[in-house]
Amino acid sequence: LAPLFLSRLLIKGGRVVNDDLSQYADVYVEDGLIKQVGDNLEVPDDVRVLEVNGSLVIPGGIDVNTCLMKPHLGCSPVDDFYLGSRAALAGGTTMIIDHVTPQPGDSLLEAFELWQESADRKCCCDYSLHVDLPHWHPGVKDELEVLVQEKGINSFQVYMSYKDSFQMTDSQLYEVFSSLKELGAVVMLHAENGDLIAQEQRKVLSLGITGPEGHPLSHPEELEAEAVFRAITIGNRVNCPVYITKVMSKTAADTITQARRRGSVVFGEPITASLATDGSHYWSKNWAKAAAYVTSPPLSPDPTTPEHLHDLLACGDLQVVGSAHCAYSTSQKAIGKDDFTLIPEGTNGIEERMGFVWDKAVATGKMDANQFVAVTSTNAAKIFNLYPRKGRIAVGSDADIVIWDPDRTKTITSKLQQSALEYNIFEGMVCRGGPVVVVTQGRVVYEEREGLRVQQGSGRFIPRQAFPDYAYQRITTRSKVTTDPTMQHKPGSGPTPIRTCFDDTVGKNGR
Amino acid sequence: LAPLFLSRLLIKGGRVVNDDLSQYADVYVEDGLIKQVGDNLEVPDDVRVLEVNGSLVIPGGIDVNTCLMKPHLGCSPVDDFYLGSRAALAGGTTMIIDHVTPQPGDSLLEAFELWQESADRKCCCDYSLHVDLPHWHPGVKDELEVLVQEKGINSFQVYMSYKDSFQMTDSQLYEVFSSLKELGAVVMLHAENGDLIAQEQRKVLSLGITGPEGHPLSHPEELEAEAVFRAITIGNRVNCPVYITKVMSKTAADTITQARRRGSVVFGEPITASLATDGSHYWSKNWAKAAAYVTSPPLSPDPTTPEHLHDLLACGDLQVVGSAHCAYSTSQKAIGKDDFTLIPEGTNGIEERMGFVWDKAVATGKMDANQFVAVTSTNAAKIFNLYPRKGRIAVGSDADIVIWDPDRTKTITSKLQQSALEYNIFEGMVCRGGPVVVVTQGRVVYEEREGLRVQQGSGRFIPRQAFPDYAYQRITTRSKVTTDPTMQHKPGSGPTPIRTCFDDTVGKNGR
Amino acid sequence: LAPLFLSRLLIKGGRVVNDDLSQYADVYVEDGLIKQVGDNLEVPDDVRVLEVNGSLVIPGGIDVNTCLMKPHLGCSPVDDFYLGSRAALAGGTTMIIDHVTPQPGDSLLEAFELWQESADRKCCCDYSLHVDLPHWHPGVKDELEVLVQEKGINSFQVYMSYKDSFQMTDSQLYEVFSSLKELGAVVMLHAENGDLIAQEQRKVLSLGITGPEGHPLSHPEELEAEAVFRAITIGNRVNCPVYITKVMSKTAADTITQARRRGSVVFGEPITASLATDGSHYWSKNWAKAAAYVTSPPLSPDPTTPEHLHDLLACGDLQVVGSAHCAYSTSQKAIGKDDFTLIPEGTNGIEERMGFVWDKAVATGKMDANQFVAVTSTNAAKIFNLYPRKGRIAVGSDADIVIWDPDRTKTITSKLQQSALEYNIFEGMVCRGGPVVVVTQGRVVYEEREGLRVQQGSGRFIPRQAFPDYAYQRITTRSKVTTDPTMQHKPGSGPTPIRTCFDDTVGKNGR
Amino acid sequence: LAPLFLSRLLIKGGRVVNDDLSQYADVYVEDGLIKQVGDNLEVPDDVRVLEVNGSLVIPGGIDVNTCLMKPHLGCSPVDDFYLGSRAALAGGTTMIIDHVTPQPGDSLLEAFELWQESADRKCCCDYSLHVDLPHWHPGVKDELEVLVQEKGINSFQVYMSYKDSFQMTDSQLYEVFSSLKELGAVVMLHAENGDLIAQEQRKVLSLGITGPEGHPLSHPEELEAEAVFRAITIGNRVNCPVYITKVMSKTAADTITQARRRGSVVFGEPITASLATDGSHYWSKNWAKAAAYVTSPPLSPDPTTPEHLHDLLACGDLQVVGSAHCAYSTSQKAIGKDDFTLIPEGTNGIEERMGFVWDKAVATGKMDANQFVAVTSTNAAKIFNLYPRKGRIAVGSDADIVIWDPDRTKTITSKLQQSALEYNIFEGMVCRGGPVVVVTQGRVVYEEREGLRVQQGSGRFIPRQAFPDYAYQRITTRSKVTTDPTMQHKPGSGPTPIRTCFDDTVGKNGR
Repeated sequence: LAPLFLSRLLIKGGRVVNDDLSQYADVYVEDGLIKQVGDNLEVPDDVRVLEVNGSLVIPGGIDVNTCLMKPHLGCSPVDDFYLGSRAALAGGTTMIIDHVTPQPGDSLLEAFELWQESADRKCCCDYSLHVDLPHWHPGVKDELEVLVQEKGINSFQVYMSYKDSFQMTDSQLYEVFSSLKELGAVVMLHAENGDLIAQEQRKVLSLGITGPEGHPLSHPEELEAEAVFRAITIGNRVNCPVYITKVMSKTAADTITQARRRGSVVFGEPITASLATDGSHYWSKNWAKAAAYVTSPPLSPDPTTPEHLHDLLACGDLQVVGSAHCAYSTSQKAIGKDDFTLIPEGTNGIEERMGFVWDKAVATGKMDANQFVAVTSTNAAKIFNLYPRKGRIAVGSDADIVIWDPDRTKTITSKLQQSALEYNIFEGMVCRGGPVVVVTQGRVVYEEREGLRVQQGSGRFIPRQAFPDYAYQRITTRSKVTTDPTMQHKPGSGPTPIRTCFDDTVGKNGR
Repeated sequence: LAPLFLSRLLIKGGRVVNDDLSQYADVYVEDGLIKQVGDNLEVPDDVRVLEVNGSLVIPGGIDVNTCLMKPHLGCSPVDDFYLGSRAALAGGTTMIIDHVTPQPGDSLLEAFELWQESADRKCCCDYSLHVDLPHWHPGVKDELEVLVQEKGINSFQVYMSYKDSFQMTDSQLYEVFSSLKELGAVVMLHAENGDLIAQEQRKVLSLGITGPEGHPLSHPEELEAEAVFRAITIGNRVNCPVYITKVMSKTAADTITQARRRGSVVFGEPITASLATDGSHYWSKNWAKAAAYVTSPPLSPDPTTPEHLHDLLACGDLQVVGSAHCAYSTSQKAIGKDDFTLIPEGTNGIEERMGFVWDKAVATGKMDANQFVAVTSTNAAKIFNLYPRKGRIAVGSDADIVIWDPDRTKTITSKLQQSALEYNIFEGMVCRGGPVVVVTQGRVVYEEREGLRVQQGSGRFIPRQAFPDYAYQRITTRSKVTTDPTMQHKPGSGPTPIRTCFDDTVGKNGR
Repeated sequence: LAPLFLSRLLIKGGRVVNDDLSQYADVYVEDGLIKQVGDNLEVPDDVRVLEVNGSLVIPGGIDVNTCLMKPHLGCSPVDDFYLGSRAALAGGTTMIIDHVTPQPGDSLLEAFELWQESADRKCCCDYSLHVDLPHWHPGVKDELEVLVQEKGINSFQVYMSYKDSFQMTDSQLYEVFSSLKELGAVVMLHAENGDLIAQEQRKVLSLGITGPEGHPLSHPEELEAEAVFRAITIGNRVNCPVYITKVMSKTAADTITQARRRGSVVFGEPITASLATDGSHYWSKNWAKAAAYVTSPPLSPDPTTPEHLHDLLACGDLQVVGSAHCAYSTSQKAIGKDDFTLIPEGTNGIEERMGFVWDKAVATGKMDANQFVAVTSTNAAKIFNLYPRKGRIAVGSDADIVIWDPDRTKTITSKLQQSALEYNIFEGMVCRGGPVVVVTQGRVVYEEREGLRVQQGSGRFIPRQAFPDYAYQRITTRSKVTTDPTMQHKPGSGPTPIRTCFDDTVGKNGR
Repeated sequence: LAPLFLSRLLIKGGRVVNDDLSQYADVYVEDGLIKQVGDNLEVPDDVRVLEVNGSLVIPGGIDVNTCLMKPHLGCSPVDDFYLGSRAALAGGTTMIIDHVTPQPGDSLLEAFELWQESADRKCCCDYSLHVDLPHWHPGVKDELEVLVQEKGINSFQVYMSYKDSFQMTDSQLYEVFSSLKELGAVVMLHAENGDLIAQEQRKVLSLGITGPEGHPLSHPEELEAEAVFRAITIGNRVNCPVYITKVMSKTAADTITQARRRGSVVFGEPITASLATDGSHYWSKNWAKAAAYVTSPPLSPDPTTPEHLHDLLACGDLQVVGSAHCAYSTSQKAIGKDDFTLIPEGTNGIEERMGFVWDKAVATGKMDANQFVAVTSTNAAKIFNLYPRKGRIAVGSDADIVIWDPDRTKTITSKLQQSALEYNIFEGMVCRGGPVVVVTQGRVVYEEREGLRVQQGSGRFIPRQAFPDYAYQRITTRSKVTTDPTMQHKPGSGPTPIRTCFDDTVGKNGR
């Protein structure tokens, strides 16, 4: 074990790729941190040397959307923090942010602690947590305050869907957004119109459709775009940063793009599944296969969707690639065998996340290697206030490093995956590009020839400060501008710049 | 009186302008109908001859958005069916469709009868009625059925705004849309996000802003666009025609435009106010003036709005010009003198409607005279199933005819208006183009030199059949296509075309 | 023969569909004209009665883009005015406008007469002619004047492609546009960037690619969009109507759409081929098949193109469906067997034109029957000043009438086609909707059971007046507005509204 | 002099703002380089300490568009490399890239040497040079090769305007682009349609308009957008990076935005003038004032242009802010007093460039401070291959550093400017934000209280390597993908992926 976990490591002869620059340089690591980057480094003798011969040396990936403990009707995903983090590492991801998903009525704090405790015991890579809000009432505000100010949580998810359960009304969303903004947190949204989904589900079931194809039929693409549009509108009104999880369709992505152009502070996260496959499989004759793709919002039946999402990642209109990894086995999925609305939702993707971005965007010339680093790691670190500790190869940063081989080719198969699932929704797909060595906390935990050598529970909880600069700078300035006392209003005394001032700032036709 | 109301009329030497064609032709009218159109007509001797010397002879205007009886906190608009229809005629409009506006809890049928009774007594031009739905419960369906099948009503308005009063949830909207589609009616929407408006009103009031400027501050433009987007989404889901009343902003209009391009059956109605002025007046130091502009959605503060709306009318992306005439006097508006949320909403525009479209679109070269006829008359007749009885100068059509002088110039002023209002929101504006003679039911009721000579109660109720071809043809075909039994689904047997078939039809990237 | 060509005809029991209205009505025809439309018509006894039992009665189609005499390296298309017009009639098209295509150096007038003489001898339906300009020099203006003022020609095509042959520079285009505007003609454009095509052809040939796939490879889609954008820009500058022939790609179509929204007077014409098939066939292993699809601009390899073009026809953003029928046999195409740049360009489509619009747009619910009439007949009649003589079923119009069966299903095959071609690019495609009876000049020339009974040379040349109202109304107003002496400029004396006034009128942000 | 130019400098107590991160840190400079960044730095005793008390410490600005020697009809700009670089430094810009502008027929190499010699003598800050191509013939290629491979030039400008002088045809542009791509250079474009401008100039002059307002009247906005569209099309065809200099209008900017979304490698550069003022001044009664704004493309008369350009800079759709500083005095401008086409073109802006971006974008909440650094410095360094030597505050980078005070307010006036011009087009405008200390090559050259202390000729020529990674990574991959022998074509053997492969990669609907 010793040589493997040696705390001193020299990565030699690689091309270091950050989101802003690629350069040939060696990287010296000690005590879990990057200590030197450059040529002709002076390092101790007892250092392990990795000769990487021109391979790319990139910041470890950050997967900000995993669900490793999300319960569904009493059962838990088969990939827990141990198996899930192993899969992450095998794919080049060295940090995850998992969703704490309390049920309506649960205490947020208790749920948080449950998750943290489990992750501390099991997780093999550094992690943090988002907390999802299953309900809204004044008491929640106190819990949010504790989570943000004492627990290191700066991101919370709310739901526009799941009627009669997690779904919030626009009024509630407005209030949640307002509270989170005050605390300096990022609002994450599950964006689908739950009222209409409920109506469509009823209609589809009434037609006698009970199989997995009922899922996309009752979740048409435009219900995602509609909710995204609405979420951004509320975000503009409250003036807070909005983060759309799971961008699954072209229209949802375009809605985000257009809002950004008009100045909205909004971020969009396509996931492995939406970037690498499509919704045609919902009509598979194989029930188990079809059910494997069930997630919300669903995969789009439009096969040009992945290309489009990669285009938008490449030009910066979308920012972050998540996996939304949530692994329910076929027998768990079978709860919904007679009623698609009961199928547990989730797809795999934590291990394949980075590879498919390389394969479909970088190898094709859509995206350059620096932007690849940005969308798989750096941007997430910035948005969620982990940067530059995470997301960058620089002196002082955590030694979460991946040696990436752009030419490696791999055929995805459940037989070789880390996940405990018996299937893989990308089964049989060939993927160019992948990690050959993965270093986390300064230790080599994965080598292509050796496989994984991880230590359960070695991952650390990484607290995150409120008011991430990347998300909040413009927000703060706008709030100042719109509450500037010199711009105050006297009734009957001419234009009131309050609010419209802000409207001008972000409006399409701002003047 | 005799010669004036002579039932035989020859309009000679004019250029007849329909929405598809302009041609020099004489028009012979008898018994309230157009009997001949052409050259060298054979007509009786005892006919009144109007020599119009090359002036334009156009179908009388149709104003599909008036509120001549809409109550507000116990008071009624100062322009009732008599005064309102006089103003309409003076502006070249020979038919109106007024909104029946019951309060929550009221019977729709009783409200309808109240309106009809009043209009029958007072209205000086032909009229029809939309019925607004103040609430939704199963019993309403029965009333709708009677209204559509027995009373000649084919259009109903619902509200996405006015929280805790008229506002419906998305689920309710879905159900209303479904019911109206079954009956073959057109769904009209007041499109603004009421939840967010309520939040904004609270915020604005809390800042101490109580004047009329609080109205636009609490109704930011994007709340209109958001609701339009959502309304169209619901319409697509239900597959029914959607009609957006009062398009007030560029973003709302653009949302309609984009949806039409993707195949949505949606129509948009800008109004006199949004086509001829803007929201800067809300900040007038004169409270009464500022309050006069209060309507919902509000006028946009962006002064380029009218140009843009005219561009979209000109190219066919918007279809109908309404007036939304709802006349509350300054003393009525003053109910809200200490709280802008109480100001009765409504602006004048019934008399100025056609003139400003000519002035701002035709005279500037944006729009041709045929399209002018389309947006002020013909399109409305088609959508609401009045065509070709109304909206066209053709043999067999009603003799609702206007002699239009494109070169006439008029300065708008409350002193010379028909309305009982003591103000006019277009005061002082110069308008090119206007009627010199107005004929309704074959009778000359307005001549520039003589003024109006109308007969109270002479207007007839014009019933309208369900399933207007113009709005329902595509709807019906789509419904057939998506329920075609040969396209039915068997679970586990491959693609289900139901619904997606429709999605493909209208989807952005439908295949 | 007698009963067939009987000059009196009663079409009974049909649903008459014009572009604005559908209604059950009988149609009485005499002397080649429509004499009555309505119920209970009074007609002579010796009239042929067609009982159509509820079938649709629509205006005969107008195909404004045919090339029945266009020479290529010494050979002529196999479908001349006789065969071509037979095919037109068999498909429901009762009038064509053919392109006169002189070679550089030829006299336009002589070419026009050559075409006219041939058409007069052979054509079986009414026809008119566009004249293409193969060159530009001051002398051409005189010929244009004669053609417009004496010969009844109001539309001329210019080329942005075919470098060193037909291609004109932007300066020349500006001058041609200016001359045509003065004469009141419509400018038609072949819109592709010829400079870049020449460069791409060189590159593709240099790679050793000589087969038909070299054609799309050297005519990438964006070169069409680029030229469309440029053509519209020139049209805006000159202030004249612009008509884009052969809209083949989504990007070209979208460019037109966007320009119309900003007020440009521009029309777009997709063709049978771009509406019913795509460019994948260029890579067919069968050389003859691949070569059959060679036309410029080429068919797009994007298979979603036809859907998109139908969407834009349905919402009015594109206006006219042509066929661009230009029939070269496989042996003629084989001139280019070793060099794709020599393959004669052209596809069939004159007979299939209307059927595929019905099949792909009306039968699917994209388009209603009225809009079908608009895009296959009425709009063309308006743009090219044939309306309402052509393009409408109304008293006084020419009796060019088609009985259309929406439910008829037909499989396209060269074996049953009228064209002399040995192939059909739509071979094997199934098409819903088609003509059961075709009437031209009041005579039944096609019946489904009987086939065609035409008389060679019976078609008449239909002269067309300059300044078509539909295309020129806004142009004329804009010219007046911008040269209004009251808006004249004195140097150094403030804003000059000349030209900018116009810019404001049509500009994206006009104020 | 000694203390001022002391080679050791400690900037203490500032907030270091790079494009990716802001952090409180000290910066230690020695020998013109940044040696340390962080807290508690160990520095020698004899170091000058700048206490900046929380002010922002940002990378010195890079102005990549200056014309300090551009001749016009025999006269030179009044601001040469000495005066121009002084003005740059006073505004916070520590490096410029000037345009070498040979006349048609001149040797590029000789012109380059002339510029370099002058700059070496006079320039007070580091500089580099773009070379503009005044003509195109095979001999030029040899000069380009020398310039790129021996002289350190990697960017060349070509002209789509200035007919009969600099303007190139599309064929020539294609060839230039191809040559520059082979050499790894960035193609810069002056994008306007010269053919149409020449036509418009003729028309405007013929109307008797000779004053400065003739300039915008003959350069309508859409001629800029047209050329941008065409330039990008050519760039896509050749597969090379395209850089649009002087983005002056919303439509041009939007054209760039849309192309980037579809994958084009294109960069856009608005300038001080287009970001801070508009074209209304061309109609000033004061000839000298109006003439001062004459530049090409002209300033847009649309006053909402600056807001829109800032929005696009803020969201990353535009990348670089230049100044296009080219200073002709009023007496030089007066060459065109009787003919606006002779007015020397150019506006000031080198000193005001950074301030107005702060004022109009950062202070209003449109843009954050990091993006401010990106668009005023870092992005330019990346595109032109100066990064991270320039454009970043990091160990090893050149010590070009600005202490920026976000709250400083300054009123622009020619009286206090560095430029020798007697006017300033921003006269009287108030600007928030500006430099309080400027450090270049490690020396303090500007302090607010002391003013400038520069040394003529101290600026160094900074050579730039070909194939800048930021611009060429995707280009190179695409070239490889499209020439991959495994994707080669055999005639008649199915799809040819050459070129279309690329098209698919970047196409709107790429599959």
